[in-house]
Amino acid sequence: MKHSFSITRSTNPKQKPNPDKLVFGETFTDHMFIMDYSKDKGWHDGRIVPYGPISLEPAAAVFQYAIEMFEGMKAYRTDTGKVQLFRPDMNIKRTNNTNDRICVPRIDPDLMLDAIKAIVDFDRDWIPDRPGTSLYIRPFIIADEPYLGVHPAKHFLFIIILSPVGSYYGVGGGSNQLPATKIYVEDKYARTAVGGTGAAKIGANYVISLKAQEEAAEKGYDQVLWLDSAEKKYVQEIGTSNAFFVINNEVITAPLDDGTILPGITRDSCLALLRKWGIPCSERPLTIEAVYQAAEDGTLNEVFASGTAAVISPVGEICWKGKKIPVKTGPIAQRLYDELTGIQTGKIPDTMGWTVEVEKI
Amino acid sequence: MKHSFSITRSTNPKQKPNPDKLVFGETFTDHMFIMDYSKDKGWHDGRIVPYGPISLEPAAAVFQYAIEMFEGMKAYRTDTGKVQLFRPDMNIKRTNNTNDRICVPRIDPDLMLDAIKAIVDFDRDWIPDRPGTSLYIRPFIIADEPYLGVHPAKHFLFIIILSPVGSYYGVGGGSNQLPATKIYVEDKYARTAVGGTGAAKIGANYVISLKAQEEAAEKGYDQVLWLDSAEKKYVQEIGTSNAFFVINNEVITAPLDDGTILPGITRDSCLALLRKWGIPCSERPLTIEAVYQAAEDGTLNEVFASGTAAVISPVGEICWKGKKIPVKTGPIAQRLYDELTGIQTGKIPDTMGWTVEVEKI
Repeated sequence: MKHSFSITRSTNPKQKPNPDKLVFGETFTDHMFIMDYSKDKGWHDGRIVPYGPISLEPAAAVFQYAIEMFEGMKAYRTDTGKVQLFRPDMNIKRTNNTNDRICVPRIDPDLMLDAIKAIVDFDRDWIPDRPGTSLYIRPFIIADEPYLGVHPAKHFLFIIILSPVGSYYGVGGGSNQLPATKIYVEDKYARTAVGGTGAAKIGANYVISLKAQEEAAEKGYDQVLWLDSAEKKYVQEIGTSNAFFVINNEVITAPLDDGTILPGITRDSCLALLRKWGIPCSERPLTIEAVYQAAEDGTLNEVFASGTAAVISPVGEICWKGKKIPVKTGPIAQRLYDELTGIQTGKIPDTMGWTVEVEKI
Repeated sequence: MKHSFSITRSTNPKQKPNPDKLVFGETFTDHMFIMDYSKDKGWHDGRIVPYGPISLEPAAAVFQYAIEMFEGMKAYRTDTGKVQLFRPDMNIKRTNNTNDRICVPRIDPDLMLDAIKAIVDFDRDWIPDRPGTSLYIRPFIIADEPYLGVHPAKHFLFIIILSPVGSYYGVGGGSNQLPATKIYVEDKYARTAVGGTGAAKIGANYVISLKAQEEAAEKGYDQVLWLDSAEKKYVQEIGTSNAFFVINNEVITAPLDDGTILPGITRDSCLALLRKWGIPCSERPLTIEAVYQAAEDGTLNEVFASGTAAVISPVGEICWKGKKIPVKTGPIAQRLYDELTGIQTGKIPDTMGWTVEVEKI
């Protein structure tokens, strides 16, 4: 590591949770990483400190104007006891793209990687080792500067917190049959627009989506399938995951070029594996009508979502304007899930060069 | 007041700022109001405490998913020493509409009004009395519950902070000639979409707009004029203010019906005054092309923005796709400014029933 950080060790370490009963993102480890940004010093004073409350002025820009961004990634413990990250360079690249979009200063990629490695290494005892478990890593940036005028901030905090998490599908996970979700096609609310922040990983995109998600849940659906906001015609994302449709043996996902789609790292990894396997895949606009037509024609093979939390989540039912179609769960989602989780946990050799070891210091 | 609140007085009152040198939203008074929300107790434990930092878990939903909303309003000191608010019922109604949109629990309107009155009364010595000055009131709600799953929060803080502010146009303000702003018509970035949160007063809308504002400033413009995101055709808002166009003696502003426009209280007050004065006005879609055509025809009489901070801000130049048009500042913007600030500060009798006194307790 090129960068070193000061360390304040917790004098009151917590009891580690039962690895069989981990709830996503509700337990946090003993420490966190914090770093300041100021105009004159840049990003500075990176430090490992006990996990605990942070104190901000009520006028802080994160409270008033939601000036904040975040990332999500995981550290895995392999069978040989090694700890590894999955494609952290992609999270770091996306951080800086997000920062550019909301006027937050860039972070040196090596500094960010060193910070992630340092805090994961320091709390490595917290990484669960049951199948399907991992350590969820949440880097985020908040503007802590107090002012009420609407303008970019000049002081920020970069923080990394860690949460041991179970398999999204319960203990076991692994190569079991993946459970299928029910998806509601949203045709009232909008998530983003061309020229908006759909490709940036900012909290703003999430607060905007809560109401649609809540109403879909009330109707008995697990997630919302978002359509483009201008025409309500093209499929975009499923909840906070990327969406894949297999039609006539071609795997299709929304393209990134109009800036409305989050450039998911699992999405990118799926496309890379599919190409490696010689399975036809395309990043191209797809209408919800074409999905329904394929269901009618019998050519809708599979639908699934991809993301860091669940990795791959197959869809079993879609409802659009009151019309429901069943979707079969199929071999492509399962194969991607098995391969990705296999590489992440070290059970399958990483021929793609995607894993990065967190060495013990 | 129906509600009473506990009080912890500051033991370290600050020196009040020079009223001639007030910068918008950078100085805060000695106290703030805080109230908690929990599922079982609802909104509870309203209290006046010394202004100062608040302590939150780093996993708080406001930091991760931008679950927050805010309001903006002012208290004015009249020549007779009375303190009054301007249409607080409208801010309170908008608060609850915003809350509905982002899954935040509603606040009893009487409770919110009592909270505003209580904190303004308590720090009434901070209300400046120079012409054009006032006390800016910033109520806001943040989700302080720590979790990383994406879902609505169940614990919140409602906070009111106060900031003495000068005239947006420098000391004097009053009936002087209003300075004109230069406006850049944004045709790359988008602010919101139909079905989005444009009508909700949430930080998310503001962080999304920062980049466009920054780029416009680099080009020498004061504010951005937003177009609708689907067609980039219809005028929407100017920066964080509502936009008015006077064409052929008709005052036109964007309608509220598609949910993309913030229902501004100054906007509503302008429309009410124009109707009272018998000046033709319409809430209807207006294309940027029609604005440019009017400029060419010589029928573009005035353009101005309305908002709480500046009240009325005339536009002197518009630039769209590299083509600049000059706009004359005119009598309607000036008359609205004089009437609104006159009513707000008690210099003009309030025949509209818009002002609400903050009585000394």
